[in-house]
Amino acid sequence: MKLPKFVAMNFPSKLVENAVNQLSSLPGIGKKSALRLVLHMLKQKKQNINQFGNSFIELINNINYCSQCFSISDDKTCEICSDYKRDKDTICVVEDIRVMMAIESTLQFKGVYHVLGGLISPMDGIGPSDIKVEELIHKAQSSSLKEIIFALSTTIEGDTTNFYLFRKLKNLNITISSIARGISIGDELEYADEITLGTAISSRLPYENSLSK
Amino acid sequence: MKLPKFVAMNFPSKLVENAVNQLSSLPGIGKKSALRLVLHMLKQKKQNINQFGNSFIELINNINYCSQCFSISDDKTCEICSDYKRDKDTICVVEDIRVMMAIESTLQFKGVYHVLGGLISPMDGIGPSDIKVEELIHKAQSSSLKEIIFALSTTIEGDTTNFYLFRKLKNLNITISSIARGISIGDELEYADEITLGTAISSRLPYENSLSK
Repeated sequence: MKLPKFVAMNFPSKLVENAVNQLSSLPGIGKKSALRLVLHMLKQKKQNINQFGNSFIELINNINYCSQCFSISDDKTCEICSDYKRDKDTICVVEDIRVMMAIESTLQFKGVYHVLGGLISPMDGIGPSDIKVEELIHKAQSSSLKEIIFALSTTIEGDTTNFYLFRKLKNLNITISSIARGISIGDELEYADEITLGTAISSRLPYENSLSK
Repeated sequence: MKLPKFVAMNFPSKLVENAVNQLSSLPGIGKKSALRLVLHMLKQKKQNINQFGNSFIELINNINYCSQCFSISDDKTCEICSDYKRDKDTICVVEDIRVMMAIESTLQFKGVYHVLGGLISPMDGIGPSDIKVEELIHKAQSSSLKEIIFALSTTIEGDTTNFYLFRKLKNLNITISSIARGISIGDELEYADEITLGTAISSRLPYENSLSK
């Protein structure tokens, strides 16, 4: 028998309660963690917490998206899309800027991006019209694209989105590819799951092409 | 061999970077989690995020502490201190409002509180003058207190603070007590650590007093 630690949280101050409720509305932050964070804030300088609050207000009121790739950008066109050295004929399709930032940090990709802003997910009520799918198809139809690379997560939503996009794009004269699925660099084979290992075997490639760069 | 996932985080937007830095300045929130939270925010209504930011600004600019117990309170005197039914001659000494809220939710305490706002911690450079110690001693000297109950954590800092307070208060004609240390209700004895079990044996009490209320 374990008794619950709190029957209910009765805050001694509405201000604290409000701040706790706001913080715990974020995914993964519970009420108790939120209260711990709020008490931490109260020990900081007033100026720092004003800056903290203002950073979100400035973010939401001034947020801007690149008109080309729909990445978040402070300018009308983002740094990558306005870089003349980037190959505009190769587009990498990503879910959000987190994936874009991860790919950028590899220094392996010289093309541009298309940020969908989500994945098709019937369970969550997110259809193709809720994300930047039409814009990608329009881009593919109206420009001289050579290749579109899908870099979406290996989840039901990622696979659904990949499949939807592939059906819409396959009849255009553009190479459609997907990032390689296989064993992570540094992973030990005996611990790999069967699906990954199976995919890695069926997608085997000439040894000289398989060396990590 | 595992390669690091990010060499560095190059944000496509200063606004996003700023919000991520602010969130990840909180204890326990890393940069990657912070970015995930910021992207979550960007999918919310503008109004909600404005309220989010404002809740912290309002908190830090309007925060008020009870003049009696130093708990956070929206009024000059908090609800508990201004309740005529509470026993003002019994003071429970706590570290912060989290402990106060936890004790309140037990409905077992009818006295009032004294919120120290921290614990003495030489390692962190926190001395008696940084927390509300003088105020407690002053209260003990100048009023008709019957009992002071220490309800501090069983840590080095908690024990140091207990000891410091005890030395300052022992010569006054006030009962000084500490919350009981022992086996948690619902815990199995074979898994209790030796110190807790040892304390529980040496602090044994008549069976009829040991029943949980």
